[in-house]
Amino acid sequence: TSGNMNHKGMLMSRYEDSAKNILVLKLENGYNVGIKIDDVTIKKLQTPDLKINTKEKIIPKNENPIKLLLVSTGGTIASKIDYRTGAVTPVLSPKDLLSSVPELASIADIDVKTILSEHSENIIPEQWVKMAIYFDSLATSKYAGIIVAHGTDTMQHTASYLAFALQGFPKPIVLTGSQRSSDRPSSDAASNLIASAHFIASNPDPGIFVAMHNDGDGEHIAVHDAVRVRKNHTSKRGAFETIGSKPAYTVIKGKVEKNTQEKFPKKQYLPKIVVNTKAWLIKYYPGLDPKIIDHAISSGCSAIILEGTGLGHVGRTMYDSITKASNAGIFLGMTSQCIDGNVNMNVYESGRDLQKMGVIPLSGMLPETALVKAMWALGLENSSTEMENIMKQNITGEFYQSSFSS
Amino acid sequence: TSGNMNHKGMLMSRYEDSAKNILVLKLENGYNVGIKIDDVTIKKLQTPDLKINTKEKIIPKNENPIKLLLVSTGGTIASKIDYRTGAVTPVLSPKDLLSSVPELASIADIDVKTILSEHSENIIPEQWVKMAIYFDSLATSKYAGIIVAHGTDTMQHTASYLAFALQGFPKPIVLTGSQRSSDRPSSDAASNLIASAHFIASNPDPGIFVAMHNDGDGEHIAVHDAVRVRKNHTSKRGAFETIGSKPAYTVIKGKVEKNTQEKFPKKQYLPKIVVNTKAWLIKYYPGLDPKIIDHAISSGCSAIILEGTGLGHVGRTMYDSITKASNAGIFLGMTSQCIDGNVNMNVYESGRDLQKMGVIPLSGMLPETALVKAMWALGLENSSTEMENIMKQNITGEFYQSSFSS
Repeated sequence: TSGNMNHKGMLMSRYEDSAKNILVLKLENGYNVGIKIDDVTIKKLQTPDLKINTKEKIIPKNENPIKLLLVSTGGTIASKIDYRTGAVTPVLSPKDLLSSVPELASIADIDVKTILSEHSENIIPEQWVKMAIYFDSLATSKYAGIIVAHGTDTMQHTASYLAFALQGFPKPIVLTGSQRSSDRPSSDAASNLIASAHFIASNPDPGIFVAMHNDGDGEHIAVHDAVRVRKNHTSKRGAFETIGSKPAYTVIKGKVEKNTQEKFPKKQYLPKIVVNTKAWLIKYYPGLDPKIIDHAISSGCSAIILEGTGLGHVGRTMYDSITKASNAGIFLGMTSQCIDGNVNMNVYESGRDLQKMGVIPLSGMLPETALVKAMWALGLENSSTEMENIMKQNITGEFYQSSFSS
Repeated sequence: TSGNMNHKGMLMSRYEDSAKNILVLKLENGYNVGIKIDDVTIKKLQTPDLKINTKEKIIPKNENPIKLLLVSTGGTIASKIDYRTGAVTPVLSPKDLLSSVPELASIADIDVKTILSEHSENIIPEQWVKMAIYFDSLATSKYAGIIVAHGTDTMQHTASYLAFALQGFPKPIVLTGSQRSSDRPSSDAASNLIASAHFIASNPDPGIFVAMHNDGDGEHIAVHDAVRVRKNHTSKRGAFETIGSKPAYTVIKGKVEKNTQEKFPKKQYLPKIVVNTKAWLIKYYPGLDPKIIDHAISSGCSAIILEGTGLGHVGRTMYDSITKASNAGIFLGMTSQCIDGNVNMNVYESGRDLQKMGVIPLSGMLPETALVKAMWALGLENSSTEMENIMKQNITGEFYQSSFSS
């Protein structure tokens, strides 16, 4: 983009709305760069093969006793680059996915099913319910487990929802995705799928997990507890992290290892597939307009998860509005924008004051997990007291207590 | 708190509002634990010395050529535990602070000044302005630099504001604090203050920094660029991190090392001490009520920083409200809740759509930094076009480009 730089890549078709004097090159790292035509020298290196291989490979059905279901919901893992627009769009069927990763067939017999085709930023809570109802129908099926291809943007939200709604689910459900689309050389789609299949084949604990690339070695995949995982990088493959401890499992070249961390005790399967989106997540910052809480009240909000500073604080400019919300019977829960570590509202005056107003500290629960839990709990109970009881229960390991370290 | 546990600690006075059947013990780690009286055996081990030493030590004025100013704004670093209520309250004067850390006098001649006495969750943008005006008055003073004792909760917000408002400030201003109050054995107050003094005495780059404990060794302090730092843990001493790269400097046992990272080029000092809090930070999540944007518009908001998912996305349920905000002349900037990595709104349809609506990608700028920058920029310019120009300028290194890694 600057006068003295060289760029090597594939010349893209113009976007419908792109500026007239801009060329777009797709670089080898998969990203596009726009170049002003004004002062540019173009050298043609080769004619690209634009044909996308959509032929189905034949998958050898072996006598593997393990049967898996691969469910696609969309996302980058089920995407190709649209060479007309340069955009990444979710178009791959799970059959395409499966045929592009022949290694999977040697691990298990895999059936496929598409239940949604969305990038995950567009997934709405009503679709969590749809997914949960479908997975519930598979609770006693022949499958050893379910792999869910899902966009990475809100994978943690869907995973958390499933963990609450399908608590005690008797099989492993593994959400996986990719940070780079499947037609890119650096794509993590195949290795994440393969590791997910190895994980299920290893007969692990049942429950809801997220399996994604770990930092470092390309063959190192981490399997995270649904309610403890967070996407902590916009673009790198090792973007997902279990907050405050090691991932529950790791899969290294097909070998599955369970980490020693305490696993939340198994529960009887008791699905509670409900949702109510009248919960707001409000992140505090200096200068936050306290009227935002008044807006929440007037919008019929029934629960507010505060993402406070430090150990769980907001400024006293918010006190009047919070008192109003509390008096209106709105559940108020406190999490921390620090992300790691526990909320502790007994140390400072602010925390004590907020507790007096009825704000409930949510320990080390991630803000996003707390929000999803609130949306789920509101589907069960609408009264502030009942909500408080549910929010305080450790249902599926969300009340993680980070160990107090240096 | 459970029937079969032993707790050893100091018996605290009852809180005014504490339950009648609860005893409160302050444990050796500094935290309080509440114990039900029902089923408890109490053994007195010693009579604690409740007197707090407030005697001023005499500070030897040496012939040190370095002169520093230690400014207190409050926070844990300037706090003691109130043994009446068990709470940590900001009561220490900078003189007290100074006399409790006699090592400081061997590094520099230090003057002290209190300009505020607040835990930082209560600091409001108008107080950023007050601080900036005061520091501006010291631009050509005898001091080699300024140490600012500050609460850790919103230290990054204050630091960012000072970096924008006092761009090109000719001396180092170092915000420091502590995660544990000064009267706790594990307090990091002294080591952070000493490292801050060593840092200024080493004649580093001028500008605004945050100096706090690093993870690991107790004598390892990191000095972060103001606009790149984030509090990433609620309680541990090594809570602060430079996002996406190493801290600008480290101070190990008094030795100051500059990291090789590219330093934002020096600027002429041109203070622009303004603020306008009509900026909102809105974090996206599935099920977010789009009316929140309508509320922002009706509240007279002039800038919205979106904390999107992944590379900078929100769900299409938000599109109508975002279009309305854009048409209303509100500046819309996109950051990522992933915290690490760059926003890239050219890869996916959502990003392209949002750009068409006028949302401006803010690269790797931290959401909190972007919000503070917006509040500052709105103080300079109210028109959306001018705002956009300012927001797109890399004023003090806030447009960090994270390197694209695995």
